[in-house]
Amino acid sequence: MTATTQTRIELDSLGPHEVPATAYWGVHTARALANFPISGTPVGSHRELVAALGAVKLAAARANHELGLLDDRRYDAIAAAAEEVRAGALDGEFVVDVIQGGAGTSTNMNANEVVANRALEILGLSRGAYDEIHPLDHVNRCQSTNDVYPTAVRLALVAAIERLRVATSALADSFAAKAEEFRAVPKIGRTQLQDAVPMTVGQELGAFATTLREEIARLADSRALLCEINLGATAIGTGITAHPDYRRRAVAHLAEITGVPVVGADDLVEATSDTGAFVQVSGVLKRVVVKASKICNDLRLLGSGPQAGFAELQLPARQAGSSIMPGKVNPVIPEMVNQVAFWVIGNDMTVTMAAEGGQLQLNAFEPVICHGLLQGFAWTAAAFDSLRELCVDGITVDAVKLAAVAAENAGLATALTPLLGYARSAEIAKAALGGAGVVRDLALATGGVEADVLDALLRPEVLANLES
Amino acid sequence: MTATTQTRIELDSLGPHEVPATAYWGVHTARALANFPISGTPVGSHRELVAALGAVKLAAARANHELGLLDDRRYDAIAAAAEEVRAGALDGEFVVDVIQGGAGTSTNMNANEVVANRALEILGLSRGAYDEIHPLDHVNRCQSTNDVYPTAVRLALVAAIERLRVATSALADSFAAKAEEFRAVPKIGRTQLQDAVPMTVGQELGAFATTLREEIARLADSRALLCEINLGATAIGTGITAHPDYRRRAVAHLAEITGVPVVGADDLVEATSDTGAFVQVSGVLKRVVVKASKICNDLRLLGSGPQAGFAELQLPARQAGSSIMPGKVNPVIPEMVNQVAFWVIGNDMTVTMAAEGGQLQLNAFEPVICHGLLQGFAWTAAAFDSLRELCVDGITVDAVKLAAVAAENAGLATALTPLLGYARSAEIAKAALGGAGVVRDLALATGGVEADVLDALLRPEVLANLES
Amino acid sequence: MTATTQTRIELDSLGPHEVPATAYWGVHTARALANFPISGTPVGSHRELVAALGAVKLAAARANHELGLLDDRRYDAIAAAAEEVRAGALDGEFVVDVIQGGAGTSTNMNANEVVANRALEILGLSRGAYDEIHPLDHVNRCQSTNDVYPTAVRLALVAAIERLRVATSALADSFAAKAEEFRAVPKIGRTQLQDAVPMTVGQELGAFATTLREEIARLADSRALLCEINLGATAIGTGITAHPDYRRRAVAHLAEITGVPVVGADDLVEATSDTGAFVQVSGVLKRVVVKASKICNDLRLLGSGPQAGFAELQLPARQAGSSIMPGKVNPVIPEMVNQVAFWVIGNDMTVTMAAEGGQLQLNAFEPVICHGLLQGFAWTAAAFDSLRELCVDGITVDAVKLAAVAAENAGLATALTPLLGYARSAEIAKAALGGAGVVRDLALATGGVEADVLDALLRPEVLANLES
Amino acid sequence: MTATTQTRIELDSLGPHEVPATAYWGVHTARALANFPISGTPVGSHRELVAALGAVKLAAARANHELGLLDDRRYDAIAAAAEEVRAGALDGEFVVDVIQGGAGTSTNMNANEVVANRALEILGLSRGAYDEIHPLDHVNRCQSTNDVYPTAVRLALVAAIERLRVATSALADSFAAKAEEFRAVPKIGRTQLQDAVPMTVGQELGAFATTLREEIARLADSRALLCEINLGATAIGTGITAHPDYRRRAVAHLAEITGVPVVGADDLVEATSDTGAFVQVSGVLKRVVVKASKICNDLRLLGSGPQAGFAELQLPARQAGSSIMPGKVNPVIPEMVNQVAFWVIGNDMTVTMAAEGGQLQLNAFEPVICHGLLQGFAWTAAAFDSLRELCVDGITVDAVKLAAVAAENAGLATALTPLLGYARSAEIAKAALGGAGVVRDLALATGGVEADVLDALLRPEVLANLES
Repeated sequence: MTATTQTRIELDSLGPHEVPATAYWGVHTARALANFPISGTPVGSHRELVAALGAVKLAAARANHELGLLDDRRYDAIAAAAEEVRAGALDGEFVVDVIQGGAGTSTNMNANEVVANRALEILGLSRGAYDEIHPLDHVNRCQSTNDVYPTAVRLALVAAIERLRVATSALADSFAAKAEEFRAVPKIGRTQLQDAVPMTVGQELGAFATTLREEIARLADSRALLCEINLGATAIGTGITAHPDYRRRAVAHLAEITGVPVVGADDLVEATSDTGAFVQVSGVLKRVVVKASKICNDLRLLGSGPQAGFAELQLPARQAGSSIMPGKVNPVIPEMVNQVAFWVIGNDMTVTMAAEGGQLQLNAFEPVICHGLLQGFAWTAAAFDSLRELCVDGITVDAVKLAAVAAENAGLATALTPLLGYARSAEIAKAALGGAGVVRDLALATGGVEADVLDALLRPEVLANLES
Repeated sequence: MTATTQTRIELDSLGPHEVPATAYWGVHTARALANFPISGTPVGSHRELVAALGAVKLAAARANHELGLLDDRRYDAIAAAAEEVRAGALDGEFVVDVIQGGAGTSTNMNANEVVANRALEILGLSRGAYDEIHPLDHVNRCQSTNDVYPTAVRLALVAAIERLRVATSALADSFAAKAEEFRAVPKIGRTQLQDAVPMTVGQELGAFATTLREEIARLADSRALLCEINLGATAIGTGITAHPDYRRRAVAHLAEITGVPVVGADDLVEATSDTGAFVQVSGVLKRVVVKASKICNDLRLLGSGPQAGFAELQLPARQAGSSIMPGKVNPVIPEMVNQVAFWVIGNDMTVTMAAEGGQLQLNAFEPVICHGLLQGFAWTAAAFDSLRELCVDGITVDAVKLAAVAAENAGLATALTPLLGYARSAEIAKAALGGAGVVRDLALATGGVEADVLDALLRPEVLANLES
Repeated sequence: MTATTQTRIELDSLGPHEVPATAYWGVHTARALANFPISGTPVGSHRELVAALGAVKLAAARANHELGLLDDRRYDAIAAAAEEVRAGALDGEFVVDVIQGGAGTSTNMNANEVVANRALEILGLSRGAYDEIHPLDHVNRCQSTNDVYPTAVRLALVAAIERLRVATSALADSFAAKAEEFRAVPKIGRTQLQDAVPMTVGQELGAFATTLREEIARLADSRALLCEINLGATAIGTGITAHPDYRRRAVAHLAEITGVPVVGADDLVEATSDTGAFVQVSGVLKRVVVKASKICNDLRLLGSGPQAGFAELQLPARQAGSSIMPGKVNPVIPEMVNQVAFWVIGNDMTVTMAAEGGQLQLNAFEPVICHGLLQGFAWTAAAFDSLRELCVDGITVDAVKLAAVAAENAGLATALTPLLGYARSAEIAKAALGGAGVVRDLALATGGVEADVLDALLRPEVLANLES
Repeated sequence: MTATTQTRIELDSLGPHEVPATAYWGVHTARALANFPISGTPVGSHRELVAALGAVKLAAARANHELGLLDDRRYDAIAAAAEEVRAGALDGEFVVDVIQGGAGTSTNMNANEVVANRALEILGLSRGAYDEIHPLDHVNRCQSTNDVYPTAVRLALVAAIERLRVATSALADSFAAKAEEFRAVPKIGRTQLQDAVPMTVGQELGAFATTLREEIARLADSRALLCEINLGATAIGTGITAHPDYRRRAVAHLAEITGVPVVGADDLVEATSDTGAFVQVSGVLKRVVVKASKICNDLRLLGSGPQAGFAELQLPARQAGSSIMPGKVNPVIPEMVNQVAFWVIGNDMTVTMAAEGGQLQLNAFEPVICHGLLQGFAWTAAAFDSLRELCVDGITVDAVKLAAVAAENAGLATALTPLLGYARSAEIAKAALGGAGVVRDLALATGGVEADVLDALLRPEVLANLES
């Protein structure tokens, strides 16, 4: 193999460097590949990020074209190439590692080079003919990594949040449907893992629906925060080298292209160094998974058994549970969700440290923030889809057994306190626990309360306050 | 000393127990003291929490009185005692450890006992005369720890957030004033710790003001989340044992008493077990300290020197810096703020784990969530006050020196790129770095650009985009 | 009140400052008090740290005396004062906040001033007469905060670790005693919360003893790491201003005084900036509490019920569990331990960030590392003592019920697989779960296996492998 | 395409399921693929884990063969297949997601199926002919996921640790070589970012070598902890269904096969549920990256500039730093290492939560622990290799400039204190800072000290204590 047939030579300020002849990416990307052989996961694996980069490059090109900074021919080619990036046709060309130094410079350079070379190809020119279309002078015109990259990351997160919002909403609906199905199935509620007072399965599962639905509003709040962008800030927020009218135009084009209501930040110096929105979004995601993990802990607990456990919920069997114990089925889907939650909580710590470590006019660690967040949103959304389809939708209960167990629980004595007082109720509870009978019969035996009053008081619907 | 003169005996379901004769607290508190000798920090150290407990007890008493569940005499005494708790007269009686099992039961019991015994005293009765006023049957009527405690914690957090909001606002104002003072002092901006392009000290400090001011809105958002309470839920959200009209009345009284617009949650089962609001609030606080830590890192960096550092800002000397190096002064205030930030970030992890660990109808770990959050808000507010008064307000700069240094920086070459192109600008930058002269003179020497054009382009106000 | 009768004036490089007349501490401490009003917790609350500071000051004084840098009179007074600090007589004078900037300078200065003024008093001189005994020139001779403080923190941790080691050992013994008590009580083991195969209560509790005993070795390993000290390094590890023979002597005296086998680090520059030992120790502590939290989760789970839970262990009742539910008793002690664990895990994050944030020749954030670790060890040791005394020692089981439940569990079918194969065993398990009978009888009914063989195979001791 | 030609049907306890005809994996793996579409990263991406699984299957097969539980024909085929797994020939068949519920069951099943089908192929039989060689009855004989998986994870970690040990050692050597190269180049040391006292570049970089070398011992300690395995424990540690002599033989074979001195745990019940070793290993890895992050923070700081920064070290240029600023070069390699550190610290939190969340006789979350740790070790080792090759090895300094800067620093006044006292030294420092001259000349001018004494005292080698 000879280099001339398989590679081309590109030049940057560090000198010449070989690039595969067919690659749309160029020398900057090549150096980054050599510098960051860390995770093996390329930037192109984050579809939303590549789409966002395409959108930003397109918006910038439109603004530059309007301002006379790009001629028609170059603009048409660049715009067409950027659209392809946006649409996903060139994801495989975004090869730099997600873990990279340089504050996203390598990702931006990768985008500039891919757009330039694809644009050159559209014009019938060969790759590397940068005199015609230059990654920096043309594609990156009026831009800096320091405004392009954070803007793209924010747009990518808006998309990632939307996917999770949909998954969360569907999961909440699934719990709500189950809550309706088991609306009036009585069971004993528990606090601190001790038998407490009666409720229904519907209330228990309905609480999961409620708590997840609250997250939809939180996710929407986060979205709003992300819509404030620093495009036009260039290097540090002073807009150096950018045309005075570039910023307004580029932001407007970006909003139109993406349909996301992005607006320019008021204080561009602040906006260029600040990663507060990422910390906030990470916190919101963490809250989502904390809730999901709590729910899955409960599902596993309520499904424990089949004989020596709580055995209140039957989770659908998804796979054989054991290579040694015949017939064992495990709650593998909730267990998976727990692990995703632990992972995302770890990522939140990563994001926190990266945000805290930013210095002066820029945060050099945005790439790891970006990867941590996009990964976290993607995994959580996938986990929620699995949880819904493969677990929650298939939950069943044995209503007769649950009602019987609830009726025998000594915790019913709490309901007697307004009638009999705390002391007598406690004696009844103690007797019930000792096996002397169920609370209703023991209460009747103590005298002073009529059977019909008791039965009305101890109706499951009353105990669970279903009729209020 | 004999027990009869110094202690009284109280009885609970576990049997008799000695209590100091003068204590307002009783047997439940005494057992908790023995059970939780962990941190040495009593609940009473959290003024906001005790005030909130007083408010809840008062609101409940009012509702119970209106519903005929408390007679006038008892109500008057209980209300007066609860007011005293609220006002801070009895903080020293809240002796249970902040680290406690039982989901806050010990704190609620401590409150019930203090209110009961103080009410008894108001009526001229002796402590422990619970036949007259009982901690549970009267003070805790229609209540459970599981609704009282989370409600009180939320109210306490509302107060804690308000204190931090004020401190944050004042700190932001301090930075803004300094930004105004140094509005036009030029300096070189830095990205990735490398010299980048010019800006002003005002822009740099102004970004700190901007970023902190954003937190005020976030803190307000958090407050809203906390206003949804589960008072009236009793044990698990079904309202068992509470009068049907109690909840509405108690919530309304609580809003009136505290001035905080609390509202009852729609899904009380969810609201009783959910700690999402605490996770959210903790995340917001974490974001505040992440920003503060980044700012303090910058202050320390910009103040590094005096000779072999950045030496751009002079932080006021607060104490001798060294027991060995004469004249050394260290940035002790920002260093303290960094440490508070690290601590609060640790507390966020504690809150996260405690929230994730909740099970079924209750989270047993709310006490550690409560302590972590109240401590975090208090420390952060105190740290911000110190940072403002003892550091930021006293920052000075050497404007002449800064301007001179900025004028000599090779980073000015970036401004030439629209005029001379990237390649020639790079050569000028290289020459400037090599000591051949300043960018202006080198650019002039290359020819093709007039001195007056250059001087207009390189005016600090233009470079920093101050006039846009 | 007039200043002259109640205060004295001291002078430092920032000017004169009032100090309470009776205070042993002086101007440096006074400034620190004003600078760091954060936590309200004074350094003096950490007994081990104050003791360690006393020991270091004593060791330094001995070395300085031997080297002729301190005369007999001064030495005797300083040594006596340092001994008092070590013994705990002056803890109340260590008033600076545990959260402080300055890398421990304020703590060291506090110690220097207390020793100096107490030494002056011993000599019959008045406080502040620093011409006679100076906090810096005499007490701090040949020292810097940067070697004194890390050395003292390490010694304090050695003491804190020892206390936890004792508490851990006692807790493990308590579990071991219970394991012996319930050695042969059969129960069903569980994996993934699903019934698995038989074991005994003794094996379950014995595993807790084993896992805690492993920690004793880990704690000892940590201790070794802490014994490498940088005393004599002075400011940055070059030993500047210290007598050439000071280091050797001071380290030897410190070892003799404390009984801790401290040795000087080989690379003092590294040792002065490195906080790796603290990260390691924090990790070890975290591992201890992770194990303890898992154990307490299990105790709470195994104690769940009394009717609608696992109900295998009865944890002793420590306090009434509910203000609303008569007779409810909660696992408050394990819940407290869980919360301590969550707290300590948070502290580990704090320590991690503080360690990571160190810069160049010193870590300015050692005070928060010190506080986080000492607090963590103290809380954990206290929590373990409570767990042992108030919970584990009192655990009881209903052996008859457990044996009956275990004998009915379908999980016994696993034991049949070598005899009947996986498929037939699975059928038997399924039938048992369906209520057709217990595994033994169903296996017998399938034929092909003799009753005595079956009974031998299904003996609880055999199933639990107790006799191997 | 028709299913009959492209797939085969396999059966498990949940019923029939299609499997690609050419896949070595079977129905259990197929179900896991459907259940866990989360990360997209297959188990096979962890070479060390697959190798370890191959080794365990081989060791088990040898033991079973010796015990007569596997005939020669089956043994030969299974052993050959397991060897191929071990060697890496079948990594592509380990397709289950690294994020999976089921405590590793899917990974173990994947291994069982791949070994079985490859063994069948070796025997000339078709895939799925499990009557001949069964994934469970033959390949998994005497095993459970619960002992196989933790054992394999431990072996994988031993390999991962070894790779990091090598990388750490090489990085330390690189710093040591640079320390030797710049052994006597004077510079000013800094504490709390303030100029302190003189040292050399060699001492500074040498401290990095020292601190990294300490990690080698820590990594070795971790390895020892991992060598205690629970192979033979089967489901919960009681060894149910395993031949009495299986355990001893299997462990011995595993040690021989791998060369790793594995030993069986004494308490198999404890060993089966305990994840303490993973927490410990994660803590050790965290310590490594905390140190690396601190070092990289220092490298970035010391390399700041080129004009308006510390500018003491020149890091080699690896890529163009800016898309907008000509000539800018950024410390991209250290920045990458920082981000890897933040990531690994996040993973430690994940591992911690997963370990804490284990319940009763098993930790269901080992898969996420495994992935977090293997990823962390791999990324860190890769990052260290980059740091060494692409950064440290190429560091240069301007020795003349550094010496000149050091000689002018007012911090030299500290060296005068033993000679002139603290007060006069402080005056000299103040004058030097004020620009009145360098410390040497000012000291000479104050009189009372001879020039030759002064010069001897202020020799860089003396100041840095190089000759001690």
